[in-house]
Amino acid sequence: MRFLIPLISSSITSGHYRIISRLLSAHLTKPQRSTLPPFFNCQPPSMAASEESLRKALAEKQSAVEAHGNAVRALKAAKASKPEIDAAIEALNSLKLEKSSIEKQLQAAVSGSDGDGALSREAFRQAAVNTLERRLFYIPSFKIYRGVAGLYDYGPPGCAVKSNVLAFWRQHFVLEENMLEVDCPCVTPEVVLKASGHVDKFTDLMVKDEKTGTCYRADHLLKDFCNEMLQKDLTISAEKAAELKHVLATLDDLSAEALGAKIKEYGITASDTKNPLSDPYPFNLMFQTSIGPSGLSPGYMRPETAQGIFVNFKDLYYYNGNKLPFAAAQIGQAFRNEISPRQGLLRVREFTLAEIEHFVDPEDKSHPKYSEVVDLEFLMFPREEQMCGQSAKKIRLGDAVSKGTVNNETLGYFIGRVYLFLTRLGIDKDRLRFRQHLANEMAHYAADCWDAEIECSYGWIECVGIADRSAYDLRAHSDKSGVPLVAAEKFSEPREVEKLVIAPVKKELGLAFKGSQKNVVEALEAMNEKEALEMKAALESKGEVEFYVCSLGKNVPIKKNMVSISKEKKKEHQRVFTPSVIEPSFGIGRIIYCLFEHSFYTRPSKAGDEQLNVFRFPPLVAPIKCTVFPLVQNQQYEDVAKVISKSLTTAGISHKIDITGTSIGKRYARTDELGVPFAITVDSTKDVTIRERDSKLQVRVSVEEAALVVKSVTDGLRTWEDVWEKYPHHTSGSADD
Amino acid sequence: MRFLIPLISSSITSGHYRIISRLLSAHLTKPQRSTLPPFFNCQPPSMAASEESLRKALAEKQSAVEAHGNAVRALKAAKASKPEIDAAIEALNSLKLEKSSIEKQLQAAVSGSDGDGALSREAFRQAAVNTLERRLFYIPSFKIYRGVAGLYDYGPPGCAVKSNVLAFWRQHFVLEENMLEVDCPCVTPEVVLKASGHVDKFTDLMVKDEKTGTCYRADHLLKDFCNEMLQKDLTISAEKAAELKHVLATLDDLSAEALGAKIKEYGITASDTKNPLSDPYPFNLMFQTSIGPSGLSPGYMRPETAQGIFVNFKDLYYYNGNKLPFAAAQIGQAFRNEISPRQGLLRVREFTLAEIEHFVDPEDKSHPKYSEVVDLEFLMFPREEQMCGQSAKKIRLGDAVSKGTVNNETLGYFIGRVYLFLTRLGIDKDRLRFRQHLANEMAHYAADCWDAEIECSYGWIECVGIADRSAYDLRAHSDKSGVPLVAAEKFSEPREVEKLVIAPVKKELGLAFKGSQKNVVEALEAMNEKEALEMKAALESKGEVEFYVCSLGKNVPIKKNMVSISKEKKKEHQRVFTPSVIEPSFGIGRIIYCLFEHSFYTRPSKAGDEQLNVFRFPPLVAPIKCTVFPLVQNQQYEDVAKVISKSLTTAGISHKIDITGTSIGKRYARTDELGVPFAITVDSTKDVTIRERDSKLQVRVSVEEAALVVKSVTDGLRTWEDVWEKYPHHTSGSADD
Repeated sequence: MRFLIPLISSSITSGHYRIISRLLSAHLTKPQRSTLPPFFNCQPPSMAASEESLRKALAEKQSAVEAHGNAVRALKAAKASKPEIDAAIEALNSLKLEKSSIEKQLQAAVSGSDGDGALSREAFRQAAVNTLERRLFYIPSFKIYRGVAGLYDYGPPGCAVKSNVLAFWRQHFVLEENMLEVDCPCVTPEVVLKASGHVDKFTDLMVKDEKTGTCYRADHLLKDFCNEMLQKDLTISAEKAAELKHVLATLDDLSAEALGAKIKEYGITASDTKNPLSDPYPFNLMFQTSIGPSGLSPGYMRPETAQGIFVNFKDLYYYNGNKLPFAAAQIGQAFRNEISPRQGLLRVREFTLAEIEHFVDPEDKSHPKYSEVVDLEFLMFPREEQMCGQSAKKIRLGDAVSKGTVNNETLGYFIGRVYLFLTRLGIDKDRLRFRQHLANEMAHYAADCWDAEIECSYGWIECVGIADRSAYDLRAHSDKSGVPLVAAEKFSEPREVEKLVIAPVKKELGLAFKGSQKNVVEALEAMNEKEALEMKAALESKGEVEFYVCSLGKNVPIKKNMVSISKEKKKEHQRVFTPSVIEPSFGIGRIIYCLFEHSFYTRPSKAGDEQLNVFRFPPLVAPIKCTVFPLVQNQQYEDVAKVISKSLTTAGISHKIDITGTSIGKRYARTDELGVPFAITVDSTKDVTIRERDSKLQVRVSVEEAALVVKSVTDGLRTWEDVWEKYPHHTSGSADD
Repeated sequence: MRFLIPLISSSITSGHYRIISRLLSAHLTKPQRSTLPPFFNCQPPSMAASEESLRKALAEKQSAVEAHGNAVRALKAAKASKPEIDAAIEALNSLKLEKSSIEKQLQAAVSGSDGDGALSREAFRQAAVNTLERRLFYIPSFKIYRGVAGLYDYGPPGCAVKSNVLAFWRQHFVLEENMLEVDCPCVTPEVVLKASGHVDKFTDLMVKDEKTGTCYRADHLLKDFCNEMLQKDLTISAEKAAELKHVLATLDDLSAEALGAKIKEYGITASDTKNPLSDPYPFNLMFQTSIGPSGLSPGYMRPETAQGIFVNFKDLYYYNGNKLPFAAAQIGQAFRNEISPRQGLLRVREFTLAEIEHFVDPEDKSHPKYSEVVDLEFLMFPREEQMCGQSAKKIRLGDAVSKGTVNNETLGYFIGRVYLFLTRLGIDKDRLRFRQHLANEMAHYAADCWDAEIECSYGWIECVGIADRSAYDLRAHSDKSGVPLVAAEKFSEPREVEKLVIAPVKKELGLAFKGSQKNVVEALEAMNEKEALEMKAALESKGEVEFYVCSLGKNVPIKKNMVSISKEKKKEHQRVFTPSVIEPSFGIGRIIYCLFEHSFYTRPSKAGDEQLNVFRFPPLVAPIKCTVFPLVQNQQYEDVAKVISKSLTTAGISHKIDITGTSIGKRYARTDELGVPFAITVDSTKDVTIRERDSKLQVRVSVEEAALVVKSVTDGLRTWEDVWEKYPHHTSGSADD
């Protein structure tokens, strides 16, 4: 569980609604924070100070302008001399100029250090998204019926990219790690999601337009209001600015009541109609349905795939020969009925998750293949760095684990494998960081959590969550189903163990404490070894002790005859325990969107009159690996093209023939826009050219070899550089014109 | 649309509820029919006659037994002589024996010619299903919570088989045919499924236990009742038997009222409680939900993936360069809230579909690659053969198309491709037939429909539907959305065409027909060319004609001034038309289940003391391609095994190492049960053995070559026979002991 909702899980367990709500929205709102420093309330002091001092300076300058304005008016009223008035006006104008300059500085400060960057980010995104939608990488679903917010189709190239990403995921994780892949239904009965906590806690706070009934996410409205004030209204005082910032920083901590109070205090109304809003109330984000015809079996579309693995633990453990560790994996659709989806592919109502549940003995979290990733070095953003306002830095994975920054080897191993997975897909390693969860983001049972965050035009986006969730999930389903989901370590020889036995004498306790007897019994049984032995000693020496019973909130006197405490020797043949689970959880759609942005660039056409779009997908993910173009329309060339096409099909290389008479330059541009890495152009019946997309370089190879050359590079057996070295270069004027 | 519900589509269009219901259940109930002849009311006369004559003979014998019994009693009462009485008793006993013999024959006749076959089919299924569930090919979902009917998980080997089947589907169809693959959400807004007809017509008839509320499929109850009577009660008269058979044969034609009447007539009660039942009423089989928080946007989990393709037609046509033909494809989950699922993996509430929509010009249904399949020969079951009680026979595909049995080349091409797909997966070609839909099974708009049916222990199961659906689906969405989903053929030169223009003169018609004017106008405009020209001639000669207006149900007099009919010449630059769609639709889960059964067999262990289970999966679909076994536990052998494992990983061959000390024979048996085709056994550090699963033959190859030999066979570059010929044979006693 918990990809895309890594935080709700903490919430679910903690059982405190307030915390849940905070954590959930902390997660959900992360992308919107992009223009703000990574961790708000510990931004570098210099920056915060500069903004605050600018606000103060602006307020002072404003007062000075007003005072001087009054002075000028007074001079005029007093009919002072023209030079005197002119001098005063000049001074006023100069003050106004100074004020305007401070305003500009403040504007820059509040919109982030890269004020212009934000603009070009927006323009970059627009160019990428236009290309993506025009070439059908994705399409708003049910477009002819005006679509549904938060639902998207992948068109042909997007679908091919997705299926390549999933095939590589399966190769990189399932096959290379011998994981047990399962495939469970999306329709899930209520009892399962009751046990996992989703039925009760998987909610967002919502407000309704009291007249039209339109729904909004309460925290989004408050956040938008604060951001708007801070960025657009430069006249607010430094104190007011600090208050708004405090609201933003603590937004995720606000209860429904506190959120409602703030909305009232600021007079926030419905964005579209300006009508008053209802009080905030929780809305469950699962799509509900009914299983079977009776209407008596509520069900939900699963909000994650992980539960399907947890409920199968017993069978999977048996399948694995009753041995730990092992990992199970699942790829599938998950559903989330967002209140008001935004941000295109990043926040959608239906998405593909790929999740791994790696089950380990909590007493041994080493990993046999850890040495294979130990020397990887990449951007990490540990908790401490976030708290002190520093930024992510390159750390050797082995160091992070040995220093205890990363909790254990297995967690470290998966962080390393996720890094390799993402960068091999084509994610830019400089825009990829592993951010550790802060203590208050994490569930109380979780040992450690790291998110793989990818930077795109929306900011840093959580794309993979990697969490050590301890035994929480298996315990929850054990409790609810009554089926023990445990593992056992068989001892080679029985072990003699000394066990502490606390035996409350219920009769005596009943006589002494009557209705409170149960509380006292439970408290006695809950003592740890040290407490029990101390009590035993005290009872033996004094005959009676004062004992604090938490559930009664007071001390009670315990006498010697009320409890027997002893140590007994037992032979044990095995150790039975609930395994810990380490869970890497991948939001495939988010990874693909970030991959689209990281792969996109534009370059001028040869004539220089237009910008051409290119996706620099590595062959591994490119939707089509190769195109085949007869240079001109001509039966001989077309026949050669068909022969090459047939060899490509035999070699399993996805490709396309384009025999239109369009200029070869236009045909190249068309396929560059789809990210096709290689083009074979037929300009003779003996040999042909192969063009590489990004360098636009071309080599000449024989017709017979063409398919194999492309296959060797797309399969990663050699690089384009190898090919460039081996084959004669082609420098005809026909290239890209 | 329409895989697994190929027949509802006809229904949806016909608009007659009765027909819909019949067709839907005709489809849905097909598997249960397995023990009956393929087409009920035209079974070979000899068989039907024999059953009927047996019933008559039995009734006669029963009367004779009764008469003789009375005679014996009369003799006893009359105190006849002992020899006389003994002779009469002997005659009675001999009559009873004859009766019992007829009973046995009748029993055999009603349970099908293979009465024993049915039993062994059941036993075979039980053995296969036990192995499948024990080895986690599939698992009832949410088992620890006692499961949900009709929901199954694929465990590790099942999941691997499924992903191999889907990968091959993508290779065989999408890549080889350059199809445009899309990936649309499961959550679908109501408007889309309203247009497709599912909201109104995708129903089954249901009855409720009037006291407990338990729901049953009405037709299932009636069918079970009739089958039970026919098979278990041998005393029913030949007339009664004929009546029950007639009910079974026409079951799918029964309206809700007729079904209800039959249930009352036969006194059928709830199976579990014997409580009375409600009248039958339609239950929509879609899982309903609500999109967004308002509760005002109903949505459904899609019952098929096809609609996602149809609504994207315009974009896909543009993506394909505005050219026909092209095919779009989609693999994804579909949902169906079955009233009471039965038959394991064959009738489930959530399943994976793979659908192709091939769009063609209705005036040209040729296919460029048709010649590649024209010589295929396989079992086909054309409409005529079904109607005359004959069985499926081998037909050359080219002949079926050229004789017009298969409507057109493109449909024929896909039938051939489906045949190749299924047989390459490992479906037994002798238990695969292509059955043509009968005229009354098909939608009125459909040109032709064929189902690929696979025979398994449940009978002949429809696994792929291949239908020429004409322009129905695109027109339905054009009408509902207002967005024209059409294609255009541009003429190289404008063409002069003569067009018939029918112009009703509304003013005159209004004066003459008042409120009925609209009906008359529509009827006039709907005339075909021949009718219109006849009317024109008649009006010119007689000045007035009688004209039948369908919607008024009567003739009206049309005068010359009421309509102008003329032929006009126009220049046209293009022909705009709604493409036809040819739709192959694959039920992946059903194909996989049949594949499991076709691959399963048992063979005695070497000691002969037990039956071992084997799946003879071809390498293409085998969940794991290879195992690596050190013969005995030994560090050197384990190291070699690890080296080989690494080469297998590099070669992309899924495999497993088993270093347990279990006997090699047991380890082979364990992997035979998973259908692993090859085992590499390490019994030296220089060379190793490779064992083939079905022949159990072994060759010796060097450690370096081992992975490559396995790869070459699993990739289909050579056969096991090639390997057997090339490498030295291994005949150690260790094999399989």
